[in-house]
Amino acid sequence: MSRPHRVRPNKRDFIVEEASRLFYEHGTGVGVDTLTRELGIAKMTLYKHFPTKDELIVACLRHIDDRYRDRLRACTEGDYAPEERILSIFDSLRDWFTTPSFRGCAFINATVELADPDHPAHDAVVEHKQRTREWVAGLVAECGITEVEFIARQIVQLMEGAITTALVENDASAADVARATAAMVLTAGKEK
Amino acid sequence: MSRPHRVRPNKRDFIVEEASRLFYEHGTGVGVDTLTRELGIAKMTLYKHFPTKDELIVACLRHIDDRYRDRLRACTEGDYAPEERILSIFDSLRDWFTTPSFRGCAFINATVELADPDHPAHDAVVEHKQRTREWVAGLVAECGITEVEFIARQIVQLMEGAITTALVENDASAADVARATAAMVLTAGKEK
Repeated sequence: MSRPHRVRPNKRDFIVEEASRLFYEHGTGVGVDTLTRELGIAKMTLYKHFPTKDELIVACLRHIDDRYRDRLRACTEGDYAPEERILSIFDSLRDWFTTPSFRGCAFINATVELADPDHPAHDAVVEHKQRTREWVAGLVAECGITEVEFIARQIVQLMEGAITTALVENDASAADVARATAAMVLTAGKEK
Repeated sequence: MSRPHRVRPNKRDFIVEEASRLFYEHGTGVGVDTLTRELGIAKMTLYKHFPTKDELIVACLRHIDDRYRDRLRACTEGDYAPEERILSIFDSLRDWFTTPSFRGCAFINATVELADPDHPAHDAVVEHKQRTREWVAGLVAECGITEVEFIARQIVQLMEGAITTALVENDASAADVARATAAMVLTAGKEK
């Protein structure tokens, strides 16, 4: 009689979810021994899903990108003026900065930690940044602004500056500073 | 007869200079073995000057802070209008982004790499950011702007956003985007 074993249909998802959390909290330098111990899985199980740690890191970044995009979408939904929806991104950032687990942008962190420019994670980082910029550009276009591309870049850099400042200075009001600048950028953009 | 030995009056400075370069290029995770091999010094020599690696990291961050401040001063000297002097910071950032050794802000990198919030390097990072903000505030005050503190924070966050974007997207024009936003912030500040 074959031994019944627990069915965990989303083992891969479980690994990605938990590893994302560990990498975010402690950095991508967390070793395979720590990962498997913390996740309570055998190394063989990990390697079955992710033959190399690099592949796991990339999967985690894509997972974090999906969640980030869900959060962006959620905070900009609703029947508001598009300017207000863009500015609400900064309110959402402020909420994020005050969560105990906040440790900056996972993608910037990965870029710093994986100093090797040929690491496969860098493609995931660049895709994340491009997707964010395109998404902001979509909202900027709804504002009736003509210089969509440039203003989207201004907004995204304000987001980056706020995230970095909040991390380094442990100060959530960095979001309010960036929000004020973003409001100015959008107003000036509409006047052109 | 005692063996003559080479006199290196600034051995400590040499260690800090070279270690700063290695930490910046490869991250603060560079080990003592690699450091001493690359610097061509004995471990005893390193430990004589820096009993712990943490002390060396802090000394390197202070060294980088000094150099950064020299560069900021140099790029904002001269008989220009204070607004132009603030904006020239972004021209200087652009030059920096195009140097082959550019790998983002050493202080943000250290914050990310040394995830432990009790690491002594964090004090050096926070001091660096405060000094930069105070210095920018001094220039903002010269512009005849009343909201000095807030506008200095806006400018510094634009610098942070540009540095991060240039690192992640490998795109020096992030400095131009931030410069345009900074010009807008300064103009609006003067009108108040």
